Parts: sequence; structure tokens; C-alpha cells
Amino acid sequence: MNAQIAQFHSIDARTGEASQAFDAHGIDDVAAACAAADAAFEAYRHTGREERAAFLERIGAEIVAIGDTLIETAMRESGLPRARLEGERGRTVGQLKMFADVVRRGEWLGVRIDPALPDRQPLPRPDLRLRMIPLGPVAVFGASNFPLAFSTAGGDTAAALAAGCPVVVKGHPAHPATGALVADAIRRAVEASGLPAGVFQHLVGPGNELGSALVQDPRIAAVGFTGSRAGGLALLRLAQNRPVPIPVYAEMSSVNPVVLLPHALASRGAALGSAFVASLTMGAGQFCTNPGLVLAIEGDGLDAFVAAAAGAVQESAASTMLTPAIHAAYDKGVAALAQHDRVETVARGCAATAPHDGTAAFFATTADAYLADAALGHEVFGAASVLVRCRDEAELGRLLAAAEGQLTATLQMDAEDEPLAARLLPILERKAGRILANGWPTGVEVTHAMVHGGPYPATSDSRTTSVGSLAIDRFLRPVSYQNLSQSVLPADLRDTGAADLPRLIDGKRA
Amino acid sequence: MNAQIAQFHSIDARTGEASQAFDAHGIDDVAAACAAADAAFEAYRHTGREERAAFLERIGAEIVAIGDTLIETAMRESGLPRARLEGERGRTVGQLKMFADVVRRGEWLGVRIDPALPDRQPLPRPDLRLRMIPLGPVAVFGASNFPLAFSTAGGDTAAALAAGCPVVVKGHPAHPATGALVADAIRRAVEASGLPAGVFQHLVGPGNELGSALVQDPRIAAVGFTGSRAGGLALLRLAQNRPVPIPVYAEMSSVNPVVLLPHALASRGAALGSAFVASLTMGAGQFCTNPGLVLAIEGDGLDAFVAAAAGAVQESAASTMLTPAIHAAYDKGVAALAQHDRVETVARGCAATAPHDGTAAFFATTADAYLADAALGHEVFGAASVLVRCRDEAELGRLLAAAEGQLTATLQMDAEDEPLAARLLPILERKAGRILANGWPTGVEVTHAMVHGGPYPATSDSRTTSVGSLAIDRFLRPVSYQNLSQSVLPADLRDTGAADLPRLIDGKRA
Repeated sequence: MNAQIAQFHSIDARTGEASQAFDAHGIDDVAAACAAADAAFEAYRHTGREERAAFLERIGAEIVAIGDTLIETAMRESGLPRARLEGERGRTVGQLKMFADVVRRGEWLGVRIDPALPDRQPLPRPDLRLRMIPLGPVAVFGASNFPLAFSTAGGDTAAALAAGCPVVVKGHPAHPATGALVADAIRRAVEASGLPAGVFQHLVGPGNELGSALVQDPRIAAVGFTGSRAGGLALLRLAQNRPVPIPVYAEMSSVNPVVLLPHALASRGAALGSAFVASLTMGAGQFCTNPGLVLAIEGDGLDAFVAAAAGAVQESAASTMLTPAIHAAYDKGVAALAQHDRVETVARGCAATAPHDGTAAFFATTADAYLADAALGHEVFGAASVLVRCRDEAELGRLLAAAEGQLTATLQMDAEDEPLAARLLPILERKAGRILANGWPTGVEVTHAMVHGGPYPATSDSRTTSVGSLAIDRFLRPVSYQNLSQSVLPADLRDTGAADLPRLIDGKRA
Repeated sequence: MNAQIAQFHSIDARTGEASQAFDAHGIDDVAAACAAADAAFEAYRHTGREERAAFLERIGAEIVAIGDTLIETAMRESGLPRARLEGERGRTVGQLKMFADVVRRGEWLGVRIDPALPDRQPLPRPDLRLRMIPLGPVAVFGASNFPLAFSTAGGDTAAALAAGCPVVVKGHPAHPATGALVADAIRRAVEASGLPAGVFQHLVGPGNELGSALVQDPRIAAVGFTGSRAGGLALLRLAQNRPVPIPVYAEMSSVNPVVLLPHALASRGAALGSAFVASLTMGAGQFCTNPGLVLAIEGDGLDAFVAAAAGAVQESAASTMLTPAIHAAYDKGVAALAQHDRVETVARGCAATAPHDGTAAFFATTADAYLADAALGHEVFGAASVLVRCRDEAELGRLLAAAEGQLTATLQMDAEDEPLAARLLPILERKAGRILANGWPTGVEVTHAMVHGGPYPATSDSRTTSVGSLAIDRFLRPVSYQNLSQSVLPADLRDTGAADLPRLIDGKRA
């Protein structure tokens, strides 16, 4: 029991006013939640594919059933506009539906069968069958910047539940009321599906104590996190120092370089400048894939790009940021760039009209200056970006090769730029999880070929993605079954069950 | 340059006599090797599938071409018998051939295509294409106990090369002459295939300094290791503390529980006892999957099992162990068990006839005693095993649930044991990477459905296997390409290239 129950409040992002109070969970609640998740694991991982898929869809239906209260609550807590949050709700429900389809289809089971070869010389070969099984209860840390699509019922939760893992969410304290509505919806889906309550649990509270205890609980088998580099690395370190270390999938920070290739710049520099600022300022710049770095070789069209971008930034309205702390960090990061003696402030957005508004900021510097100060490559979370002017292709290549790992890298290119793009591609592949041409990184499709991941420090594990159907693989591990009789084998690996599943027989697709 | 070149020697495992001297590499050599591997990476990862497959096969051919010198050298350095090493050579060559087939088939590329939906509302969907790319240069630490199949040209090397990663091997100092022969063969294959020399490099030396430097070199992107828990955890810690952490695939320790189910015990206790000892003593017990723990419920047939096993152990000849250090560690581990006041020494093998012979050891204890002392569950590398007598199924279940992660778990069972086996299976799945019925864990097939892995501390990463074709996945990461034109896309993802590959289109198998 918790002798003292701490309280914290839902905060209106625009005004900073506190409203609804929430009781924070305590350390004992973490242990109880992990025990319940562990107790639920066996039953949940043995649910059939159809049953599990229907459960995921039911979660989506329950979220929709909350109605406009959910949108209004999320608007108040995040400062994000209605259209964005309605879109995010659609994305959340679509994500659950996608994972339901993935669960039904069964690719994720990774079934492989090597039939027995009783006559092989010098020794017979046994019957070997492989499938993926879930790791165990997963701790999910919701992100502040996607209060629906990457929070309580977000991508990590959907992927872990799809894999057969119970989930314990540490709700983000920036949107407790939104989180509570969604958690209740998931609990209703759990109950309606006849599953044990331990399949989904929701812990809330300010500070780091709850999350630290959660990651260190021996019953937790993996961690999903979206947030700051400092936060992700702290959880990673805790997980590595456990008696039994566990994987941490932390999506942390990225400046998402956009490379303006010469022909594209020459033919449409001004249009690129406007489009860039639309991506930069969307959602007050609070996207993991916000374009925080623009690279260009000096030449035709660059001045037009800068002029158009500067104009668009100057016209951009200030927007409420997610939390006062994020706003303060943004202002601090922008101030550091503005005061940097080798960085020019090209343009600032319209002045703030409310206490927690962020105003866009566009800076420029040289490749020499950028390469000389690693701090210039660090993410300033919000609508801030730095243009780096390069003298030539070689300097551009050096700059890309020196960059940290990124979620995305974007090429703005015309057909005549293709040879240069092809030369840059191998460098970009080693730096980023997703490479785009002639788009902007801020749109992340929830689909099968998406990678929202990338080399460290963009994420803690470049082998994975946190968006898209491949995200399920993070919560699975392979088990091989040798010479088990049909009645003891898991149903998916029996001759009858495996025939319905995508599978490799002797390494060949059956 | 290395001012002082340390020398070390090839040791005859049987006599302990030193013969051929080797110059140890120094720290500068590590840096040079990593630079060469990094320089070779781009060219090597862009080799075509057929070219890379042919290179792997050529390595196998060059190993075979060494002829009997390889077998005799490995016999002298490892103390393992001719038949075992001839078999191991066959396994090594077969492993390379398997990976060549895997490379050709292209499943490992994991191609996924989500075609553009230009008319989607409210926004068009871009074209998204995903494939796996290699992580970068891989450091491989050869194992002492498989001087061919899991050393210089072993499973880790084959999987990393198949993935498109250059390899820097830290050769095991227990078999430097064997390693040098194999490394030369690989170098000949590199040259014959027209590949850069940095694709494969071989560093040798005693002590930990070389390996530590290798794992910390910023150009190394992943580590494969097979060996002791202390060694694996030391490398893991180094890798986690790098400025850019990298994955370590360490296969470390396992006691591989064998569970004797009641009906099997009653019907064939004596036969199981003899077969168990054959598995226990094979290769002087120096297998990662050696059956170091036997669990049984008190009942019919257990006495017959013990009597037959004791007899077989007593008749088992002492065998040369791989190195004097391994022999000393084995004797120490056996002495600790023999002196344990709750452990009974059931039988010892024949006395040693040479200085580095190990003699088999079979112990028994109770579940209470086993659960009370975690040290009884630690691996004693060699032909030592502990039988734990359980009072009932509940006690057996508790013991399995309390066990550390394992590479394998084995059920000896008759048809009448199937209900009990089915009840135990969920526990075993959470503990082991491979579950066997009516076999012995010491045979590890190199095939597609094999998992040679398992929960920590059996390995450092339960999501992977180090044997079998799935091992290639350890050295790959996904990259997504959005709206890239056909000419800029990697060839495997162009409309023409992808059509030849196994792939998912919109999540469905095409």
C-alpha cells in the first residue's frame, strides 16, 4: 500500500492552467502490475490468431466510441489542433487494424520446417520446426508528441499486444486525462474479449521513479520508449544493468537531414523553401522526423530557397507547444543557436500570443562551422532548423558521413540529380532508417514497408522499427522444436496448423 | 608499428608441448584491420547475390583443399579425435554452402513493397520499399571447442559474410595453427573472387587486449562470440559503453536440462542412462549443449537409469580436454560439486592417462538442495552432470521455472507422457531456444529451423540464433525507401529486381 498518494494534474497546454487531479501510482503498484502482467502472459500468448486480432480491433472500436471527449481532452492537454488529433485517432485505430491483419496472416510467426530425413547418412536428420514466441510482458512509455498514435494505445502497445505480450504502460504525465480515457477503452476491450485484466495496465505519475521501477522489474521482458535521448539512454542503462538484461527499443532523437540537390534547387528553389517550412512548422515542429537540418551546395536557387523559407518562417504563426518544459527547452536550444558566433539567424516566426507558444526559427551556417561543433547537430525539439551551406559535393559527403544516426534522410532532386543521388545513397543508407525523395520526412505512413528507426542515437537498436508492421518483430524470439510429436507441438507447428501459415520448408517458401 | 612483437605457441592438447610460434598482433594491427574492413564494406555489400554465394562456396572449397594437414593440425591442437574433426570440417563446408543457398534465395533481404496510392484521401500514399542491409564490419571471436565449425570460418563468419559484412576474426589462441590454415584458405577465396582483402582479416594473440580493442573500434558494427559467460559479458559491457553501442551476440553458457518423464523412465530407464552418458561424454563433454542437468520425478525406472548411467560413466575413458586451462577449470568445478555437502558423487569415469585428460563425473542431489544453491545450476564445462530428484510434478515445475535461460531443454518421453509434456512445454519455451523430444541436445543441425540461442544467460540476445540460416538476420537492419525513382533505388528494390525475390506486397506474400 502507498502510505502517501501523490497527486498531479492535467495541464491545459495553452494556458498552463491545472484542472483534473490524478493519483500517482507508487512503487507497490508497479510490482502489482508486473505480477498481473506475468500471470496473464500464458493465457494471452496462447490466444488464437483470430481471437487476438478481434481484440485489437475491439480496442480501436472502444477508442472511437469515446467520441469527441477524447479529441477535446487531447486538444486541451497537448495544444494540438482538432484536425491533427482527429487524424491521429484515425491513425491509431488504423494501426490496430493493421496489426489485426498482420496477426491473422501469420507471417510474424516465422514458421520454418525442416522435415526429418530418416535415411540421411551418417546420421538421420530429426524433424525441426521453428516459430516465434512473444518475449513476455512489455513496458511501454508513451510519447508526449503523439498523445494518441504513440502513447497509451500507440504503436508500441499495438505491436506488443499483437505479438502476444501483455503491456504495462507508463502514461505520459503531459496528457493524463487523455491517457486515462484511452486506458479505460483498452480495459473495456480486454474485458469484452474475456481476457485477464493483466493483459493491459496503465500506471501514471510524475517523475522518473515509476518508470525506473518498471524497467527493473524482473517480470518485464522488453521496453518500448519514444522521447528524449536522455530519457531513452537512462532506461537503456537500467535495462542493461538488470540481473537479466532486456531489450530497450528507444526512439530518441534525429535532425532528419534534407539534402537539396543542385538541379532541384535551380529549378524550384523557392517552392522548396515554402514546402520545407510547411513541414518544419507542422505541429509546432514537434515531430521525431522534423527537418532540423538542411544541406545544400552553394549554387543557383539556394538564395531563392532561403528567401522563400525565410518569408514563410516570418509569416508562420506561433503555436502552443506540448508542455511548458518542452517550450522552455525549445527556447533554450534556439537561443543557443542564435548566440552561436558562426550561426546566422535567417528568420524567426511571428511572436508568441500565449505563454507557451513556440516561434519558428531558421538558421544558417557553413559546413566548416557545422563540422567543428558537434552541438550544432543536436536536435532542438520544435520548429527550428539549420541550413548548412557546402562548397561542393565532397564537403557535402563529408558532412553526411560525419552525421550521427538519423530516422530519415531526404533528397530533393530532379531527374538530372539522379547520378549525384545515386552516389549519396550508400552514405545515407548507413546513416538513416528511411530515405525519401521529393517529400518531407514528417509524414510517417503506418504500413508494411515503413522503417521508423535508424542507427544510434536516432534509436537504441537500428535493427528495428517502431512504426509499421515490422515493429511486431521487436517483441518476439525464435524457438525450435525437435522431434516433438504432433500432439505436443504447438498448434501452429502441427502438420495441420502449419499448412495454413506462410512458412519455409527446408528454407524454401512453401 | 609494434615495437615489441609478443610470441605465443601452438600447444599440443594431449601433451601440453609447445610447437610452432606465432607473432601476436598488436593494437595497431587492430586499427589497421578495422580500417581495411571499413574500406572494403561498400564494395562487398554491393556484391551481387550470385557473386557473394560463389565466394562462400569458394571458401569451402579452399578449406577442403588444405587436405589432411588441417585435420592433423586441429587434432594436435584440440585433442579431438579424427572422426569428429572430419565431421566438423564437413559441417563447416556445409554451413558455407547453406549460406550460399540462402544468399541466392534472397529471403534475408526481407523485401516489402507498399505501392503508391496516388488517389488515397485525404493524402496520397507514397511508394515505400524496404530491404535489409548489412550492419557493417563484424568482429568474430572463435570458439575453442569447435576449432573448425565455430571458429575462423565458423557459423558467425559465414553468417556475417553472407549478410554482406566484412569480418575481422580474433582467432582463438587454443588453436592458432588451425586458425592460420583456415584464415589462409579464406584469404585465397577472397583473392580468387576479386574482393578487397579487407573483406576478411584474422588477428591472433593471447590475452584480452586485442579483443577488447577490436570490440571498441568505432568501425566495428557487431560482435559474434562463443565462449565463457565471463568472456561474453566482458565484451557485452565494452560494446554497451562505446560512444555508439553495438549488438553483441554472445553464446555463453547452458546446462541444458534433460527431463526424464515417468513413463519413459519406467519403460526404458536403463537404456536412457546409457544413451545419456554417450551424449555427456562426447568430445570430452565440451559442447555448449552438453547435458549438465538431468531432472526426474522419483519413481519406477529412476534407479535403473542411475545404475546404467553410473556404469557407463565408470567405463568411460578419460579424454584430452581442449586446453590445460579448460581442464583445470573442469577439475575445479567437479571438485566443488564433489565436496558439496548436499551433492552425492554417483560415479566418476576412468582415471586420466595423460596430463590434460578429463574424467567424466555424475552427481545427484535433491530439488530442495538444488533450489537452495544457485551455484549448482552453473555450467561445469566438460563431461559433468547433476541429476536432481524431484518429489512430484509440482517440484519439477518449480525447478524448471527457477532455472536460468538455456540453449536447450530435452524431454525423454513415451506416448503416455504426452499430457505431462504438454503441461511442461510452456515453461520450457520460456527457458530455452530449442526443445527436444527423445534425443540428446549435443547434436546441433545446421539448417533453417534450428535455434542455437536462448534466454539470458545462455546468450546475450534471445532474439537470435548463432547456428542455422536464421543467424544471418543478426547482421542486418531494415531501410525504407520512399518515392525513390527506379534508377536511384537499389537494384533489389526496382520493379525488375524485386520481381525475382521473395517479397511482401502490401503485407501479403507475392
